[in-house]
Amino acid sequence: MANPLPQGSTIGIIGGGQLGRMLSVAASRLGLKSHIFEPGANPPAGQVADQVTTAAYDDADALKRFAEAVDVITYEFENIPTEALDILGAIRPIHPGREALRVSQDRLTEKTFLNDLGLQTAPFADITDADSLSAALADIGTPAILKTRRFGYDGKGQARIMSPDDAEKALADMAGAPAILEGFVDFSHEVSVIAARAADGSVSCYDPGENVHKDGILDTTTVPARLTPGHRQDAVLLAAKILNALDYVGVMGVELFVTPKGLIVNEIAPRVHNSGHWTQNGCAVDQFEQHIRAVAGWPLGDGQRHSDVVMENLIGHDLDRVPELATQPDTAIHLYGKADVKAGRKMGHVNRIVRK
Amino acid sequence: MANPLPQGSTIGIIGGGQLGRMLSVAASRLGLKSHIFEPGANPPAGQVADQVTTAAYDDADALKRFAEAVDVITYEFENIPTEALDILGAIRPIHPGREALRVSQDRLTEKTFLNDLGLQTAPFADITDADSLSAALADIGTPAILKTRRFGYDGKGQARIMSPDDAEKALADMAGAPAILEGFVDFSHEVSVIAARAADGSVSCYDPGENVHKDGILDTTTVPARLTPGHRQDAVLLAAKILNALDYVGVMGVELFVTPKGLIVNEIAPRVHNSGHWTQNGCAVDQFEQHIRAVAGWPLGDGQRHSDVVMENLIGHDLDRVPELATQPDTAIHLYGKADVKAGRKMGHVNRIVRK
Repeated sequence: MANPLPQGSTIGIIGGGQLGRMLSVAASRLGLKSHIFEPGANPPAGQVADQVTTAAYDDADALKRFAEAVDVITYEFENIPTEALDILGAIRPIHPGREALRVSQDRLTEKTFLNDLGLQTAPFADITDADSLSAALADIGTPAILKTRRFGYDGKGQARIMSPDDAEKALADMAGAPAILEGFVDFSHEVSVIAARAADGSVSCYDPGENVHKDGILDTTTVPARLTPGHRQDAVLLAAKILNALDYVGVMGVELFVTPKGLIVNEIAPRVHNSGHWTQNGCAVDQFEQHIRAVAGWPLGDGQRHSDVVMENLIGHDLDRVPELATQPDTAIHLYGKADVKAGRKMGHVNRIVRK
Repeated sequence: MANPLPQGSTIGIIGGGQLGRMLSVAASRLGLKSHIFEPGANPPAGQVADQVTTAAYDDADALKRFAEAVDVITYEFENIPTEALDILGAIRPIHPGREALRVSQDRLTEKTFLNDLGLQTAPFADITDADSLSAALADIGTPAILKTRRFGYDGKGQARIMSPDDAEKALADMAGAPAILEGFVDFSHEVSVIAARAADGSVSCYDPGENVHKDGILDTTTVPARLTPGHRQDAVLLAAKILNALDYVGVMGVELFVTPKGLIVNEIAPRVHNSGHWTQNGCAVDQFEQHIRAVAGWPLGDGQRHSDVVMENLIGHDLDRVPELATQPDTAIHLYGKADVKAGRKMGHVNRIVRK
């Protein structure tokens, strides 16, 4: 792979949802093409991509042809099967790399990795059966939350345990999947850092944003976040520590709980992140372009915030609000071109610029 | 055509260059697909479009299939053959409309239209032969400039006449094409207004930008432009007057000379305009989205400037500067994905945000 990738090169993107869509648009600004690999038909990203491969993640031939047709491979979601990664990685570089995927695909591995780096997480325990759950509840206490170790997102694969009586049902909800028990953290609010690391090891972080969730799904991100100068610096330093430890190339989302005892890492996502969408209207170079720059071996761009922004997700029938939102001042609309509106489905977002 | 066009509708765009490319990206933000019609193979806009039709402008069948596959038609350049417009317009609405194209395709018609509206232009005369040129030079004086009435852009189809001795060669340069003689205007600088008009007749103008040309091609646009409050208001009012007179739907670029005697209209372009590229990094809603909004029957968005911007075009081998530009602060790069670098070819642009 040439560094930096020249005009007309192709970024292979695994996953064709809204993140792939916005990555594809960002690649175009750098004169790069994109090629989407996605099992589902008519993916949102395909509407703005140069090429689309529609195939399953276990279709070895399709994976090989895709890898051979692109110059470098990245992804919009972290739960890519290991076998697919083996095939792709043998042909072209994959960024962010395998170690970042290995760590972030499993909540137990991720939390252990973070603690080993000296970073705080919620208390947690590996749950393999009713006995280990019972022991963990005695240790961690309630309320607590039982989660599948893998494949969880937007609140899926999770069961709250308010008292030990809830344990049996919560374990049944896991349907036999390996699980982790996490203690509740007493936090005042959640922030996230969108951090980027280039192939040359340089790191750049966007200003932390403050996140509010509704029904387990991100609702709004407000920038700047309420943070003391000390916490603001801690947030950026710990994100850089994580990226460096993973020899990371690309953008990562790092969710943090703000507590009187300091910042506690909630989770990391080895990709562009919903809580970084505000950068599209707050910075000269947004998180999508920053990710493409890193993956393509370009220098990182300037992610300094030029405007304060409030990002709001449009979930399901929030889409009905678009005609009204389209008339509001300082409001940038970003829709994902999804064919069907479903409850809980991310259909778009708006970025509101806040005048000072 | 439904108003406003809903999610998943398709904008047909005639022309597959950089303007079509950035229109296509803007359409995607509104959840709309784009379909490019372009005679040349592998057009820059095709890399970010949902569909591409590669066919000549005299291919009636291809034009019909294209029109039937889209919900509304717009264009990135104004010199579309009349016969093609007849075929397309019989099937789907074309915005901006035929009257705007008729006026702007011919310099003589355009200047007459502007004068009839009470707006100032350079002195001009219809040139049909050596005698009419001689008479016009006697009337308008030198220096003057002879231009083809149609199909000119970026300084092409133009010949300067510094003294009557240059007349014969200048006329020969027109190669028999209908021409117009324009007197020189003594102006201090050039500004342009990017103005938009929605289907409901509402008008919104971006802050005027100040343009500097090099070798007949736009080099930089700086926003805000140097203008007195009176001229600033005049610029916006005259742009609105032009749009209303044409019952215009879409974005128009209006180039103006600033003179001691007021603003003189240089030319109008019935499309998004190079001097409006700064809006991508200076406004919540840029000129490309504003155009798509108008064409799709949406309300106009907020084009208020949130940042001062200097736009610089990257022409030909300016592309070699990209690695260095990529490291500069407050700098947003926009490349067009063109395969071949040629002298005088627009390869991209950068928007620099100017901190106050």
